[in-house]
Amino acid sequence: MGNFRRVPVGIVGASGYGGVQLVRLLMDHPEVELVYLGGESSTGKSFASLYPHLAHAVKLSIEEIDPEVIARRCEVVFLSLEHGLACQIAPTLLEKGCKVIDLSADYRFRDLATYTTWYGQERSDRTTAATAVYGLPEIYRDQISEAQLVGCPGGYATASLLALYPLLKQGLIMTETAIIDAKSGASSGGRDAKTYLLLAEAENSLAPYSVVRHRQTPEIEQICSDLAGHEVTVLFTPHLIPIVRGTLATVYAILRDPGLVGDDLTTIFTAFYRNSPWVKVCDSGIYPQTKWATGSNLCYLGVDVDPRTGRVVAISAIDNLIKGQAGQAIQCLNLMMGWDETLGLPKLGFYP
Amino acid sequence: MGNFRRVPVGIVGASGYGGVQLVRLLMDHPEVELVYLGGESSTGKSFASLYPHLAHAVKLSIEEIDPEVIARRCEVVFLSLEHGLACQIAPTLLEKGCKVIDLSADYRFRDLATYTTWYGQERSDRTTAATAVYGLPEIYRDQISEAQLVGCPGGYATASLLALYPLLKQGLIMTETAIIDAKSGASSGGRDAKTYLLLAEAENSLAPYSVVRHRQTPEIEQICSDLAGHEVTVLFTPHLIPIVRGTLATVYAILRDPGLVGDDLTTIFTAFYRNSPWVKVCDSGIYPQTKWATGSNLCYLGVDVDPRTGRVVAISAIDNLIKGQAGQAIQCLNLMMGWDETLGLPKLGFYP
Amino acid sequence: MGNFRRVPVGIVGASGYGGVQLVRLLMDHPEVELVYLGGESSTGKSFASLYPHLAHAVKLSIEEIDPEVIARRCEVVFLSLEHGLACQIAPTLLEKGCKVIDLSADYRFRDLATYTTWYGQERSDRTTAATAVYGLPEIYRDQISEAQLVGCPGGYATASLLALYPLLKQGLIMTETAIIDAKSGASSGGRDAKTYLLLAEAENSLAPYSVVRHRQTPEIEQICSDLAGHEVTVLFTPHLIPIVRGTLATVYAILRDPGLVGDDLTTIFTAFYRNSPWVKVCDSGIYPQTKWATGSNLCYLGVDVDPRTGRVVAISAIDNLIKGQAGQAIQCLNLMMGWDETLGLPKLGFYP
Amino acid sequence: MGNFRRVPVGIVGASGYGGVQLVRLLMDHPEVELVYLGGESSTGKSFASLYPHLAHAVKLSIEEIDPEVIARRCEVVFLSLEHGLACQIAPTLLEKGCKVIDLSADYRFRDLATYTTWYGQERSDRTTAATAVYGLPEIYRDQISEAQLVGCPGGYATASLLALYPLLKQGLIMTETAIIDAKSGASSGGRDAKTYLLLAEAENSLAPYSVVRHRQTPEIEQICSDLAGHEVTVLFTPHLIPIVRGTLATVYAILRDPGLVGDDLTTIFTAFYRNSPWVKVCDSGIYPQTKWATGSNLCYLGVDVDPRTGRVVAISAIDNLIKGQAGQAIQCLNLMMGWDETLGLPKLGFYP
Repeated sequence: MGNFRRVPVGIVGASGYGGVQLVRLLMDHPEVELVYLGGESSTGKSFASLYPHLAHAVKLSIEEIDPEVIARRCEVVFLSLEHGLACQIAPTLLEKGCKVIDLSADYRFRDLATYTTWYGQERSDRTTAATAVYGLPEIYRDQISEAQLVGCPGGYATASLLALYPLLKQGLIMTETAIIDAKSGASSGGRDAKTYLLLAEAENSLAPYSVVRHRQTPEIEQICSDLAGHEVTVLFTPHLIPIVRGTLATVYAILRDPGLVGDDLTTIFTAFYRNSPWVKVCDSGIYPQTKWATGSNLCYLGVDVDPRTGRVVAISAIDNLIKGQAGQAIQCLNLMMGWDETLGLPKLGFYP
Repeated sequence: MGNFRRVPVGIVGASGYGGVQLVRLLMDHPEVELVYLGGESSTGKSFASLYPHLAHAVKLSIEEIDPEVIARRCEVVFLSLEHGLACQIAPTLLEKGCKVIDLSADYRFRDLATYTTWYGQERSDRTTAATAVYGLPEIYRDQISEAQLVGCPGGYATASLLALYPLLKQGLIMTETAIIDAKSGASSGGRDAKTYLLLAEAENSLAPYSVVRHRQTPEIEQICSDLAGHEVTVLFTPHLIPIVRGTLATVYAILRDPGLVGDDLTTIFTAFYRNSPWVKVCDSGIYPQTKWATGSNLCYLGVDVDPRTGRVVAISAIDNLIKGQAGQAIQCLNLMMGWDETLGLPKLGFYP
Repeated sequence: MGNFRRVPVGIVGASGYGGVQLVRLLMDHPEVELVYLGGESSTGKSFASLYPHLAHAVKLSIEEIDPEVIARRCEVVFLSLEHGLACQIAPTLLEKGCKVIDLSADYRFRDLATYTTWYGQERSDRTTAATAVYGLPEIYRDQISEAQLVGCPGGYATASLLALYPLLKQGLIMTETAIIDAKSGASSGGRDAKTYLLLAEAENSLAPYSVVRHRQTPEIEQICSDLAGHEVTVLFTPHLIPIVRGTLATVYAILRDPGLVGDDLTTIFTAFYRNSPWVKVCDSGIYPQTKWATGSNLCYLGVDVDPRTGRVVAISAIDNLIKGQAGQAIQCLNLMMGWDETLGLPKLGFYP
Repeated sequence: MGNFRRVPVGIVGASGYGGVQLVRLLMDHPEVELVYLGGESSTGKSFASLYPHLAHAVKLSIEEIDPEVIARRCEVVFLSLEHGLACQIAPTLLEKGCKVIDLSADYRFRDLATYTTWYGQERSDRTTAATAVYGLPEIYRDQISEAQLVGCPGGYATASLLALYPLLKQGLIMTETAIIDAKSGASSGGRDAKTYLLLAEAENSLAPYSVVRHRQTPEIEQICSDLAGHEVTVLFTPHLIPIVRGTLATVYAILRDPGLVGDDLTTIFTAFYRNSPWVKVCDSGIYPQTKWATGSNLCYLGVDVDPRTGRVVAISAIDNLIKGQAGQAIQCLNLMMGWDETLGLPKLGFYP
């Protein structure tokens, strides 16, 4: 292997589910070495004390978050923090030459006014934010390859946008009719203890939440507008489902051409994603379930047409912690480093 | 108690989940006595051998299905069979003077051509079918009170129609924009062993199915058309969720009056259902989850408006085996017998 | 109904799962009226804000805990609090003439030294504790009927002791060989948010905990010793299972008489519990699962013998929130008030 | 890579859960090429039609089972069939020079009389069976390395024996006191549709089964006897838990030396398994849960002592489909081929 050198990477906010997935996937990534884990509430603890099942494999401890120190040790830094924290750390990291991949909402918005409206915080890093690229590789592959700062999409946005992308890009739908009914497992809510995420509450139940006001709505609309070439508004409704991992988006819209049938759409989707290794379009008449995607970085798409109402139904299934979070961040890493987009990422779901 | 006499009732098709719920609820009903259980595949078996947890309480065995015999012993007969079987039994029962409450699709359709299109069977009981009343008491209370034959709705139809009823009846929505995204637990699939209903397959997953072609679609449309006064077409998509019991329908439609807000709709729904003891409308900003309804005959409704897209979102949660099946059948029984609509039915969900 | 008067009862600690079950069951109890709900963290809140699914049925709010006030309004008071709190309230309630049914560990121990060893608190209510009766009606029916203060067993203790009772009482086993391997659902951990009870943590997993040091061990041993007539020590291991409700105890012990077979034990158990309406012994070769008991106050028992090792295996299944908590407390209430032991309690599990 | 050649391997019985895990793991194994899939009920179907989520990765179809043909194409053959079928195929495969790894019970028993007693079949392949090695690498590593035919353990046996191995090998326990209380998820029951494995039946429940007569009992006893040097009888009780994947064994036994404490046992276990890469012993006071192991080939062990009863409690957690089935088979493959024992097997569980 001669002078082969792994790229040193770090994770700020390693104690959550996004963090532990990043750790797991980066440990298996052939080009990187995980050299730093940082966090606030768990500073000083060994990672093994948070996730005992990894005690044999991960010997790092959670260190305090000092951007200067991090920048000296890491070439690439993943930020996996609550909204509003990445924007306090990223500017220094970027200035010191790091590549930064943020998993929060902080760098998803082109227009910070939208961020402030939905997330309720003023921001001082306007210049930094302007350089961020939206980390959905299927749509922004080229820009991500050139980026120093990537703001990765939310899990709901990932699933929704991959279903909408061909429809919008090819002008197939009346955009004002788009409705997204989305469902996601409990790990999307994080590892902090909240009553509604208790097994006794969430198990054996299905619960809609944040109806007509979920924060990933503006993020979805921003990208839809970009793809459509005009302002797009969508109705987005999330539901908590009693599974650990998985997000499914069921997308509805009226087709411009009422003559299209399900087979046509399947053909269009298949061709559209031909060069996207992480998107798989199901054969006509087959619809994905979340379990198919669990454990892999894949997004499965199924599409059909209801001729009676003239509507397309597009269904998208991902593992919310991989393609919806940590895996997608690593897919961005691969592009930013000029590596193969599939490097170090799981290709086969661990079904059942 | 003097000359008090309980009404003798029977269940044909007692071995499934609808059957066992009927048994449980009828055992606790103060006005009836369960005197007959019938079935095909399990003829001759004790009910306790099928459901050992009821061995101490139910001493009946599954008898063969002979309508003449059943009619001699029962005043009211519940039919809980696969589609296509009730229509072979009901005519004789009715002729002999029984009241019949069917839980299959056989007597849900005014136009048997629709039944034949979606269920694929010709029918010879055209006259009988013409007398059947659709067993959704909140909509057809008066007709059910007079009926000798009731065809109870499917669980999806129940949840969907209770959310749509006020919207359609008061002309609040543009009917052609109605979309129903529905989710239901595994008990909706029955007790017969099928691979996709195995815990190892269905657990940890969310699976859309019968996309753009589910059989409860025409049933929903028939009632919607009735309520709207013109032909209504809806897009209906069901999903299998990894819970045992519960159905949730998320209904979307464009409001005719774009000035209405969520509070308005909540007020309208609350007033609308004031006299329906089994429908509870949540306060504004609160959305029901299926667990609230589990164990009771209640339907919980929550409603809101997305001012950005001009759409109403109405959410309906029921226990698919009670309000969606056995409980609703007993609610119909109460009306048909002139008893209080709430008699013998559970009023408090068994949360958590 | 003439001068019929319902007995006024109150619940201190109504916001937890024990509380909500007590509320649900007492609402349906024909002899009582629920007039008071008390709590600490939720004082001033409406009960409906904690459990919106009961908004239509329960109009009470959570009041502050003032024993003098409670005693003026209630004849019977249920205490459903964290360990260490009931003993601060009960003495006043008793002095003012209330009957008190405590669901915590505070009044389970005859010897307060044991309580202090395992629960770590000194106690000043020694005299009060001495009058408490252990609230397991199958064993202490007569004493409960005379009691003013009852300390209800833990859920694990209930399941374990009902399996062990015939074995110990009839001297069938070598007591020093008793091992209890127990499993319970997440609602046993309460409604307070803790990380290990999150759906994302507990779902898809099975986790032993408190190995060789669970606090219900001494409680089980105290009663076993009482039954055996000599000091009994047991090995007790609990496991968290990914279900909401249900506790199962698998009990192992060496038989004194190696000639006994499974059928013998089934006969013995059946005869033993003939007059206990809430215990059902399964036929030989049938073993109960927790789902059978869910929703009812029943305890299901199955028993067999392994002739190869000379051991009995006795299996006990209950709903941890009913027979293991709120239902058993009401069973005690019925006895304390001279009512039928089964009054107001659910007899049929809500399977599936 | 020059003349690098992957070893051609095949799977007979590829349609079940063991099969799909073998497929997934062998696809990622660096030294083998999967060239053949065989089956009976699904002959002629594409593998993708059985497992659509692998449509993009696996292009093979299920072929008929002709040992002569299989032997021409494969160097190593995995047999993943119902008990009683492998013994009809293996002799020919072995004769033609294949290495054979059987996942059924057919080649687990040294004494075929035991097999016949518990599995009810006479066998004609007595000579073949005599050459089989029991495929638990931690115990029979050297023999497996030399074997042409390996009979892999059942999942329960794997979990149980890895907990018992140090205790027996070092003579720490009174062998006649060993009790195994085991729990396993629904995938252990296979993919064939059976009522008791339906989500609606198994979810929200915990069900003991095959009490005092489970078929893995004699397999466990055979190896225990081998390790102890004398006949050992164990009491083994399995329970079905509502998870997809995972097996946990809780093992109890009386220690010979009552002075040993938990720390001692942890130290002994840790030293004992120092050279077993797939066994991880938890620190003292930490007990494994099944979720830790899910997705990896690891077995986690935790051990403690109850000084009050003089018993050791040893807990073992594995993924039943990996270390309990497909992963262990590949671990055997690695040894049989002289490769590193860890090759191509997942080292990090996919928690949560």
